[in-house]
Amino acid sequence: MDAFSKCRLSPDIEALVASGHYPFYLPVEERLDDGEVVVDGRRVLMAGSNDYLALSNDPRVKAAGIDALRRLGAGNSGSRALNGTLELHRTLEAELAAFLGHEAAMVVSTGYQANLALSPLFGPRDLLLADRYIHASLIESARLGQAELRRYRHNDVAQLGRLLEGADPEAGRLILTEGMFSVTGDLADLPAITGLAARHGARVILDSAHDAGLLGAGGRGAAEHHGARVDVQTVTFSKCFGTIGGAVAGPRRVIDYLRHCARSALFSASLPAACTAAELAALGVVRAEPERRRRVLAAAESLRSGLAALGLPVAPGFAPTVPLVVGDPELCCRLWSELLREGVLANAMLPPSVPEGRALIRLSVTAAHTQAAVARLLDAVATAAERLGLVPAAVGGGRC
Amino acid sequence: MDAFSKCRLSPDIEALVASGHYPFYLPVEERLDDGEVVVDGRRVLMAGSNDYLALSNDPRVKAAGIDALRRLGAGNSGSRALNGTLELHRTLEAELAAFLGHEAAMVVSTGYQANLALSPLFGPRDLLLADRYIHASLIESARLGQAELRRYRHNDVAQLGRLLEGADPEAGRLILTEGMFSVTGDLADLPAITGLAARHGARVILDSAHDAGLLGAGGRGAAEHHGARVDVQTVTFSKCFGTIGGAVAGPRRVIDYLRHCARSALFSASLPAACTAAELAALGVVRAEPERRRRVLAAAESLRSGLAALGLPVAPGFAPTVPLVVGDPELCCRLWSELLREGVLANAMLPPSVPEGRALIRLSVTAAHTQAAVARLLDAVATAAERLGLVPAAVGGGRC
Repeated sequence: MDAFSKCRLSPDIEALVASGHYPFYLPVEERLDDGEVVVDGRRVLMAGSNDYLALSNDPRVKAAGIDALRRLGAGNSGSRALNGTLELHRTLEAELAAFLGHEAAMVVSTGYQANLALSPLFGPRDLLLADRYIHASLIESARLGQAELRRYRHNDVAQLGRLLEGADPEAGRLILTEGMFSVTGDLADLPAITGLAARHGARVILDSAHDAGLLGAGGRGAAEHHGARVDVQTVTFSKCFGTIGGAVAGPRRVIDYLRHCARSALFSASLPAACTAAELAALGVVRAEPERRRRVLAAAESLRSGLAALGLPVAPGFAPTVPLVVGDPELCCRLWSELLREGVLANAMLPPSVPEGRALIRLSVTAAHTQAAVARLLDAVATAAERLGLVPAAVGGGRC
Repeated sequence: MDAFSKCRLSPDIEALVASGHYPFYLPVEERLDDGEVVVDGRRVLMAGSNDYLALSNDPRVKAAGIDALRRLGAGNSGSRALNGTLELHRTLEAELAAFLGHEAAMVVSTGYQANLALSPLFGPRDLLLADRYIHASLIESARLGQAELRRYRHNDVAQLGRLLEGADPEAGRLILTEGMFSVTGDLADLPAITGLAARHGARVILDSAHDAGLLGAGGRGAAEHHGARVDVQTVTFSKCFGTIGGAVAGPRRVIDYLRHCARSALFSASLPAACTAAELAALGVVRAEPERRRRVLAAAESLRSGLAALGLPVAPGFAPTVPLVVGDPELCCRLWSELLREGVLANAMLPPSVPEGRALIRLSVTAAHTQAAVARLLDAVATAAERLGLVPAAVGGGRC
C-alpha cells in the first residue's frame, strides 16, 4: 500500500472549500496600529488575535527587536546547549524567573516547545492528571512522556480529588492545567487545585500561555490573580508579549534537569536575538503599564455585555477571548464569512479542536481596540447573525 | 513519592561542572563578521556554528528582517491556521517549493517542528524504516506517529533492503534519513535508497537540515548533489539560511493534508515576519552566490587535511562539520576547555547525543572563515591536543 494514500482532506474540509466558507490560513497583508489588518487589500477589524496587550506592534518592542537583530544577527544557528546561547537569553531567563516568582527559567524557541519540554517530568512511575481542555501541545508532551495520563472533566476539581485519593502513593503525582483556557476563556480553579495538591503531595504544572501578562495586579498571570502558588509554570511569548518563544519556570533543580534532558530544548535552534530582546522589552511594558490590562479587560466586558444584549449565548467570564458556540460546523463557517464581509476577522474553531457539536466563533479583543471598535465589532456580529437567522432582526440593537 | 525526586543532574554532568570543563550553554556576547564571537569579553574563533554560509550576519538578510519587523510587528500572536498567516509566509512557501523542486511547501516556526509535522504521515498501518543516526526531532516525530518504527544501521542500505523485502506489502512503507548527517558529517546513499524505494513502493522522507543551501550545484541539498528524487523533504532555516524556522516540502496533497492535521503546525504561533523575510533574503543569496558554498567546502577540506597532518583521526568527507572522536567524555571536555583557552569555541558532544564511548569534538567552519582562520584553528587544535598528549609534540607542524 502507498503510505501517502492517507493524505486526503476530510469531507468536511472539502465541503468548506467548495462552499467558499473555508475559514483557515487567510493571509494578512499588513498590520495596523489600531487593531486592524489588511486582508485582500481591505482594512478589517482583527477580532481573532491573541496579541491581547497589542505589543507586537509596539514601537518599544519593535525597536528592541530591530536593535538586537542588527547587533547579533538573524539567528543563532544552533541549540542553546552547544552554540546558540546568548547573554541575552540568560538576562531574559533571570527576568522571567523574577517576574513569575520562580527560582529559575529556561527559554526555548516556541511556546509549543516550552510545553513539550515538560515531558521529562512525566516519568514511568508517575501519574499525570490533566484537565480535559488542556492545549494540544500539552497532550503531545504527555504522549512523549512516560507517565500514565488520566484526564479529568474540565475544571471538575471534585473528580480531580477522587483521582488523587485513588492514586498509588508510590507514584509521583502531577496535575496539569491551563490558567486561562484558550478556547473557552474561563479560569482553572487554582485555589482548589493547589489545595488538593498540597493535601496529596502532588505537583502542579500550570500553562500560563494566555494569562501571563494579562491577569493579576502585576500581570503575573492566573496564579497571581488567585493568590495561588504552583510548582512549575510555562509561558509563551506569542500572546501577551507580542513575539514568539516560550519558557518553563520553576525550582532551580527542575530547570537544570530540563536543560539537560528536554529534547525540544536540546535539539532545536535557540530563540533569535530579535525575539529575545522583544520579549524583554514587552516584559518591561507589562510591568510598567497595568492600564493595558485594564483596557483589554474593559473591552472584553463591553463585548460580552453587547453580545448578551443581542441575545447571543455568552458564558460569564472576563477573558479577552469570547467564544460564541454555534454548534454546526457549516453554520459556524458561514457566520465567519459573514463577519468577514462585514469587515471583521474572527476565528472559526471546528472539531476536533473543540468537542463535536460545539463549533464556535472565537472573538477576541486587544488593548488596541477602543470602545468604538468594540461597538463596530458588535454591529458586524448583529448584522451577520441576523442574516443567518441566529438572532431576531429586532434585537439588532447592539448597533450604535 | 515526589514527582520531582527524579530532577537530578547525572553524575557525569555533576563531575564536569565540578572539574570546570563543563562545555554547554556558554553565552555568546557578540557576533563578529569574520566568524568570531565574543565570550567572556574575549574574541574567540567560532568553530561550533552551523551558520555554514555565514548568512546570519549578512547585511541583506538582516535588512530584510529589520524591514519586515518594522512593517509587520515582532510576532503574529497566533497559529497559521487561525490568525497568523502572512502573505509573506505564502511567498516563502512558493519560493521554497520551487527551490527544492516540490509542488508545495508548508512553513512552520522551527526546524524541530518541521520534523514533528511529519508525524501524521506515520499511520497505524505503516512501517517506518529509519537510519540509526537520524536527528532527535525525527525520533520524537516517529514517537508521536503511530507507525511501527524500525531502525537500520547507519547508512547500511543492504540491511534497509532486507527490511523492505521482509515488509508486509499491505503496510505503507516509509524510509526516513538525513541527507548530510549532523554529527558525523557523512552523506546518506540516496541513489541506493531511492532505488530501493522505487523497487518496493516505499516513500522516502529526507531531512535536509544540514545540506539544503550547501550541497548540489544549485544549493538544493543532498538530493540535488546525488541527482536523486525524494518524496518529502524537510529543511530548517537555522543552518545555511541563518535565521530560524523550518518547512516541509512535497506533493501538494501531502502538504495540504499536513496543514490540516500536523499538530506542531496547527497549534503553534506562526513564524515571525522578521524570520520569514530573512529566510526569503537568504534563499536569494543561496541562489545568487554559489561561491559561498565553494568557500565553506574549501575551508572544510583544509581543516580535514590539516587535522590528518596532525595525526588526528579524521573520517573522509567534505561536510563543514568535522567530528574528532575522542572517546572518553571527560577527556573530550578537557579538549574542549583547552581549545577555548587557545581561542577556539568548538562543540563537545557526549552520550546520549552520540553512542557510548564515542564522545567527540565537533569542529565546524563557515564561509566567514578564511584560510588564515582555518590555520589558526589547526594551530589551536595542535596545541590543545599536544597538551593532553593526544598527538606527539613533534607532529605539531600544523602551525603556521
